Amino acid sequence: MNIKQFTADVRTSVDKRLDQLIATHLAPSDLKEAMAYGVLLGGKRIRPFLTMTVAELCGADSDDALDAACAVELIHAYSLIHDDLPAMDDDELRRGHPTCHIKFGEATAILAGDALQTLAFEVLSQMKSERLPAERRIQMIHQLATASGAKGMCLGQALDLNATGQSINEQALETIHRHKTGALIRSAAALGALSGSEDSQQYLDDFCDFASWIGLAYQVYDDILDVVGNTEVMGKPQGSDQAHHKATYVALLGLDGANKKLMSLHQQALLSLNKIPYNTQKLKTFSEILLQRDH
Amino acid sequence: MNIKQFTADVRTSVDKRLDQLIATHLAPSDLKEAMAYGVLLGGKRIRPFLTMTVAELCGADSDDALDAACAVELIHAYSLIHDDLPAMDDDELRRGHPTCHIKFGEATAILAGDALQTLAFEVLSQMKSERLPAERRIQMIHQLATASGAKGMCLGQALDLNATGQSINEQALETIHRHKTGALIRSAAALGALSGSEDSQQYLDDFCDFASWIGLAYQVYDDILDVVGNTEVMGKPQGSDQAHHKATYVALLGLDGANKKLMSLHQQALLSLNKIPYNTQKLKTFSEILLQRDH
Repeated sequence: MNIKQFTADVRTSVDKRLDQLIATHLAPSDLKEAMAYGVLLGGKRIRPFLTMTVAELCGADSDDALDAACAVELIHAYSLIHDDLPAMDDDELRRGHPTCHIKFGEATAILAGDALQTLAFEVLSQMKSERLPAERRIQMIHQLATASGAKGMCLGQALDLNATGQSINEQALETIHRHKTGALIRSAAALGALSGSEDSQQYLDDFCDFASWIGLAYQVYDDILDVVGNTEVMGKPQGSDQAHHKATYVALLGLDGANKKLMSLHQQALLSLNKIPYNTQKLKTFSEILLQRDH
Repeated sequence: MNIKQFTADVRTSVDKRLDQLIATHLAPSDLKEAMAYGVLLGGKRIRPFLTMTVAELCGADSDDALDAACAVELIHAYSLIHDDLPAMDDDELRRGHPTCHIKFGEATAILAGDALQTLAFEVLSQMKSERLPAERRIQMIHQLATASGAKGMCLGQALDLNATGQSINEQALETIHRHKTGALIRSAAALGALSGSEDSQQYLDDFCDFASWIGLAYQVYDDILDVVGNTEVMGKPQGSDQAHHKATYVALLGLDGANKKLMSLHQQALLSLNKIPYNTQKLKTFSEILLQRDH
C-alpha cells in the first residue's frame, strides 16, 4: 500500500470540502479557477491526514476536524503556488501538471496564493461548532498563523532561498526544514488536537512532536528518493535537488548516513506516540508507509 | 491641514506597534527587513485612523483598538508589496521610495507580503484583552479575512487586472473599487466597532457604510488628482493611471462629472454618520480633509 492509498478516505472528504469552500462560496473568476486548480491538483494530503487522525483520537467533532484539516491544506497549497513562481523555484511542473502560473499567468497565481492563505483563516473563523469553545478556535488560528508566517514556513522559505548555492552544514539544513515544512506539519497535528476534547489537550505536545519528527524524517526520505528513486514515485524529476544546487542530507551524510538518520528520526517519532495513552496504531502505520519503513 | 498631519497621532502609535510586532518578535533575516520596509515606509494610515477612531467612539480598550488597526494595516501593506510586483503593476516607486522588490528582490518581496498577511491574523489571534469576548475576536478575524480574500480585495485586484486595457463602464469600475480597496476600508471601520462595547454593535453597519462611501469617494478623488494634481501631493507621477491604461472616473464622467460624483459620495458618507448618536465630528473632519472638501 502506498501513502495515497492509505490517505484515500481523508483525501476524498478534504477534497470535497475544499471544493465546496472554493466552488460554491466564490464568484466565478480566473482567480477562483486558479485557486481551485492550485488546491485540488492532487497531492498526498499528509497534513489533513494528520489533522483528522489526531482529531479523531482526541474525540473531535468530525466537521470541526475537516475544517481544521482544510485550513492547514489551504496554507500548504498557497505556499506551493508561490514557491513555484519564476522568482522563487521557477518550477513549471507540480505533481505532473503545469504549475499555477504556467496555466493562469503569474499575476493570477500570486493572487490565488494570497487568497488561499486568507481562506484558511476565513475557514477557521467561521467554524460553528457548539462543542468547541471560542478560545480554542482562537488558539487554532494563532497556531496556524505562527506556523505559517515569519516565525515558521515563510522564514524557512527565506532561509532556503539564501542557502541555495551555498555550502551549509547539517544543523543549518535542519533549521531550514524545521521552518519551511516542519512548522506546518507540526501545526497540522496541533489543530487536530485543539479541535478535540478538553481532556486530550494534555497530549497536544506529544502529537505535535510526533508530527515534527515525521516531518523532518520525510525530508531525509525525500533527499534519499531524489538520488535512488524515480520520477513516478516522487512526482518530480529525479536529481532535481542536485540540479537546483540544494543542500541535501545525502550530500551531507552520504546515502548510508542519510538512511541511518531517517531511521533514528522515525524512532523519535514513535517514542512521542508512546507517551499517548490512545490507540495510535493508525499514526504508526501512516509513518511506516510514508517513510517506506518496516513493511 | 493635510491628511498626514490630521492622522499624525494614529500614525505614531500604529508605526510604533507595527515596529514592535516586526522588530522584536521576529528573528533577524532579509525577510524581516523586507517586512519592516514594506509596512513602515510611511503612508497616510487612513485605515488605522478609521479603526482607532471608530473604536474610541465605541468605547474600546485602546490596546485592542491599536492591534485591530495594525492588523488592517498589515493586510494593506502586504497587498501593496504584491501589487507592485513586476507580474502585477510593475511599479518601481511607492511613496517616493524604491518598492520592496526593487530593494530586496522579487522572491523576498513575495515572501514578505505573504508573511505580513499572516502576521495580521497572528496579531488578532493573540489579543489578550479581558474586556473583549473570544467570540468577538473571532468575528474580527472573520471580517478581515472576508474583506481581504477572494470575496474582497483579492477579487478586486483580479478584476482590475482583467480590466486593464479594456473599456469598462461606471458600474464595472465601481465593482472593482468596492472590492479592491473598498472592502478593506469598510473592514477597518468594522474592526474598530467590533473591538467596542456590546451596546455600540448596533451601529456597526452605519460605521461600515460611512467607510465604504469614503473609500469609494477617495477613488474618485484619486482619479481627479491624477489629472489635476501633482506628484508631490499624490506620491505617484501625475498621469500614471492614463499611462497604465486604467479606467478612471474622469475618463468615464469627465472632470465635472467626477467632481459631482465625489460630492454625492461624500454626502452619502455623512448621511451614514448622522445615524450614529455619538460625537462623530472627528470622522466628519477626517472625510473633509481626506477628500479636500469644504475646508
